[in-house]
Amino acid sequence: MRTPIAIDRRRQRPLHRQIYEEWRRGILAGRFGPGERMPSTRELAAALRVSRATVTAAYEQLVAEGYLEGHRGSGTFVSQELPDRAPGLVATSTVRASSAPARLSAFVERLGPIPLREPSPAGVLDLSAAGPDHDLFPFAAWGRLVRRHLRRIGPGLRRHAEDRAGYEPLREAIASYLRRSRAVRCSADHVVIVSGSQQALDLCARVLVDSGDEVAVEEPGYPGARQLFAAAGARLRPAAVDADGLLVAALPPSSRVAYVTPSHQFPIGVSLSLARRLDLLAWARARRAFIIEDDYDSEFRYVGAPLPALQGLGDQSRVVYVGTLSNAMFPGLRIGYVVLPPALVEPFVRAKWYADRQTAYLEQAALADFIGEGHLEQHVRRMRRVYRARRQALLDALDRCFGSRATVLGDAAGMHLVVRFDVPDIASRARRAGVALRDTRACYLGEAPANEFILRFSDLGGRALGEGVRRLAG
Amino acid sequence: MRTPIAIDRRRQRPLHRQIYEEWRRGILAGRFGPGERMPSTRELAAALRVSRATVTAAYEQLVAEGYLEGHRGSGTFVSQELPDRAPGLVATSTVRASSAPARLSAFVERLGPIPLREPSPAGVLDLSAAGPDHDLFPFAAWGRLVRRHLRRIGPGLRRHAEDRAGYEPLREAIASYLRRSRAVRCSADHVVIVSGSQQALDLCARVLVDSGDEVAVEEPGYPGARQLFAAAGARLRPAAVDADGLLVAALPPSSRVAYVTPSHQFPIGVSLSLARRLDLLAWARARRAFIIEDDYDSEFRYVGAPLPALQGLGDQSRVVYVGTLSNAMFPGLRIGYVVLPPALVEPFVRAKWYADRQTAYLEQAALADFIGEGHLEQHVRRMRRVYRARRQALLDALDRCFGSRATVLGDAAGMHLVVRFDVPDIASRARRAGVALRDTRACYLGEAPANEFILRFSDLGGRALGEGVRRLAG
Repeated sequence: MRTPIAIDRRRQRPLHRQIYEEWRRGILAGRFGPGERMPSTRELAAALRVSRATVTAAYEQLVAEGYLEGHRGSGTFVSQELPDRAPGLVATSTVRASSAPARLSAFVERLGPIPLREPSPAGVLDLSAAGPDHDLFPFAAWGRLVRRHLRRIGPGLRRHAEDRAGYEPLREAIASYLRRSRAVRCSADHVVIVSGSQQALDLCARVLVDSGDEVAVEEPGYPGARQLFAAAGARLRPAAVDADGLLVAALPPSSRVAYVTPSHQFPIGVSLSLARRLDLLAWARARRAFIIEDDYDSEFRYVGAPLPALQGLGDQSRVVYVGTLSNAMFPGLRIGYVVLPPALVEPFVRAKWYADRQTAYLEQAALADFIGEGHLEQHVRRMRRVYRARRQALLDALDRCFGSRATVLGDAAGMHLVVRFDVPDIASRARRAGVALRDTRACYLGEAPANEFILRFSDLGGRALGEGVRRLAG
Repeated sequence: MRTPIAIDRRRQRPLHRQIYEEWRRGILAGRFGPGERMPSTRELAAALRVSRATVTAAYEQLVAEGYLEGHRGSGTFVSQELPDRAPGLVATSTVRASSAPARLSAFVERLGPIPLREPSPAGVLDLSAAGPDHDLFPFAAWGRLVRRHLRRIGPGLRRHAEDRAGYEPLREAIASYLRRSRAVRCSADHVVIVSGSQQALDLCARVLVDSGDEVAVEEPGYPGARQLFAAAGARLRPAAVDADGLLVAALPPSSRVAYVTPSHQFPIGVSLSLARRLDLLAWARARRAFIIEDDYDSEFRYVGAPLPALQGLGDQSRVVYVGTLSNAMFPGLRIGYVVLPPALVEPFVRAKWYADRQTAYLEQAALADFIGEGHLEQHVRRMRRVYRARRQALLDALDRCFGSRATVLGDAAGMHLVVRFDVPDIASRARRAGVALRDTRACYLGEAPANEFILRFSDLGGRALGEGVRRLAG
């Protein structure tokens, strides 16, 4: 017989696979029509000079996929049911797509595009970038703990599978750390491990907020949280912030949830006064509302000890306490935690289970030991000294170069400063001088003050900070 | 002076911290009233026989938290603004919570409780448990790759932070793997890394489905996906499954999304015929609907090569292809992937960014090499042989013990069998005999057939499978 298909012995692809692909291509291109009889395996094997088993393997695959139909005794045929004009089949990286734009959900439309943060060109001094200083993290100690748990990963994975709220030794370590360092009132039973505090906030929105609900937020406030609540259909109710933090008296009575940053208000940097903390708890109790306390960088306070958490002050049934390791360790870890009122633990674990089941095992296990053996607190103490010095260097440079034309807001805490410049063209001046700056506009629902900027000092040395401010001053 | 507070030098707690806590407790308990003058730091230091700096540190903390007010020159006073009856403050593990049940969102109410899977008591043979066999995973090779990336974690983390769709070398490795092994038409630009396929499905629901939209699902089908769509407010439209898979002709014309498992229908185990695949693509094109192709265990097909993915057959603009490493590797890894039409890539990355930013770095980096160096395909080939033998052992045992009273559904593929027993009291018999079984009821929106069970063979040896079936037969 003349072979209707060709194979190429120089290709790495197995011969049965080549035969299969050639027939499939031919059938879909219409070279072999529905009902057409196939050569027998014996004939084709002889014609192609391959073993009969090779041809049989290809035919079986074609039958399994519906290209061929076999009738015992009467041979093999191209399937009757194939549509006339089928598309080609060979996998390439070419994606064929109709150009019609996709209709997206209201949720994702409301989220809006992710704020761009393009890497700065060479020579530009970036005073806008977020995050801790990776270079000072004790990766040697961390690697030792990861390797330890790699060696016993089998039993660990089995145990992990049972812990739907998160790996239990990690929940224990975090509960103990929070009791000790943040006066949070909790046991491991109230802790749920999440994949970073962003997931914590998303789960809060999904568990606590229905479309149309009111959510009170600080003005200015953290845009990442506000966008989530808004995308969930919440009506945001801003309440202003002064030197004592959120104006609790300005909270709307009808809000179901208040999202707050009491330890270090984002972005302004003040802390919520004790009197207002107690008022806030009373507000939540009276309205049966929930307070989401986002304690995102409370480790870094440079005068006195870190402020105790709001959660530990009063009735725990109204406070969801959210924390992250992204600032104290590094964001690529993607581990955060939530401390929940007992009534919310099960619904939260449920939402997490349907969102992504669990957070990955290995780094949870290493983190449990990292906290339990004191590495976390040791690293935080070290970084507190480093960040305090960097903050001071930035303050000194601002004072030297701008004097009273730069007003620094907030407490001696955190990883950034908010600065108001009394210099009208500061943004264009920064562009000309090769300094990347981030203004606070995204943090306001209403109009933002002119010339208010977030200046990060956590991952730049004192010299770079000084140089950045000098360039700004021109 | 008589000291109003007591400290204990035998305690580990620093003295300034003890002083701070004692005052705080006293103030909140009303022992020191608003406006009351505090002893000077000098007086208190002398009375307690500690350094003045110790007392100053405690006072500064109390001022920072609003318990005290300092007036330069005139001393320090208990704050005026403290509410009368404040709660206690010492952090313990006791959680005080009002007993009122929390009002939860409609979303989490609709999700309903997580299906229970309690660990089987000793002696019970569990034929219901899901998942791959951990004991055969090449953890030595895996550990080597994780350690490799631990050694260069700094630069890796910086690169990870830029890759919002997922670590770029992993997206490359997955795109190449899917082109090679699943005939998926894609490049790394179409791949988004997610934290397991459950997150992929959740993001599908969030990006593509509005409350009130129709979503077509297979009947029976995968409950984990259906619950997500229903919780998002979708109206589920079931379409029946026969020996050729989903009855595409029964798909409702008004559905916006169809969730399907073409390679190995869950739970029944049939594969969608080629003719129906082409019909399904035509259905989606005509209605501008999206097909979510969940390819959860396509690696394990025991006759012929794995079936190519639906995604590679036609117009890629209508198919969202979802895959996971949970079955081919292990679930505690929590890594999955989505291959998207170009128009959906940005909205998907956006939804992922607000859901949890990114998937953690370290295991993405190790996985890129695990795939790139051929370990994944080698492991899959090995497990295909192992699972094929286990499946055969289960089939043999069923045939031996039940003969025609057990009907096995589906293709020679996957990690489980669906079996219909023509034995009326099989569930109670299983309980008496110490065998854990899982029926298919959760997979049906409508009424489930009696005595239909999902029998897992992937993580049990042939002997245990035989023993389980023998016990069932009594």
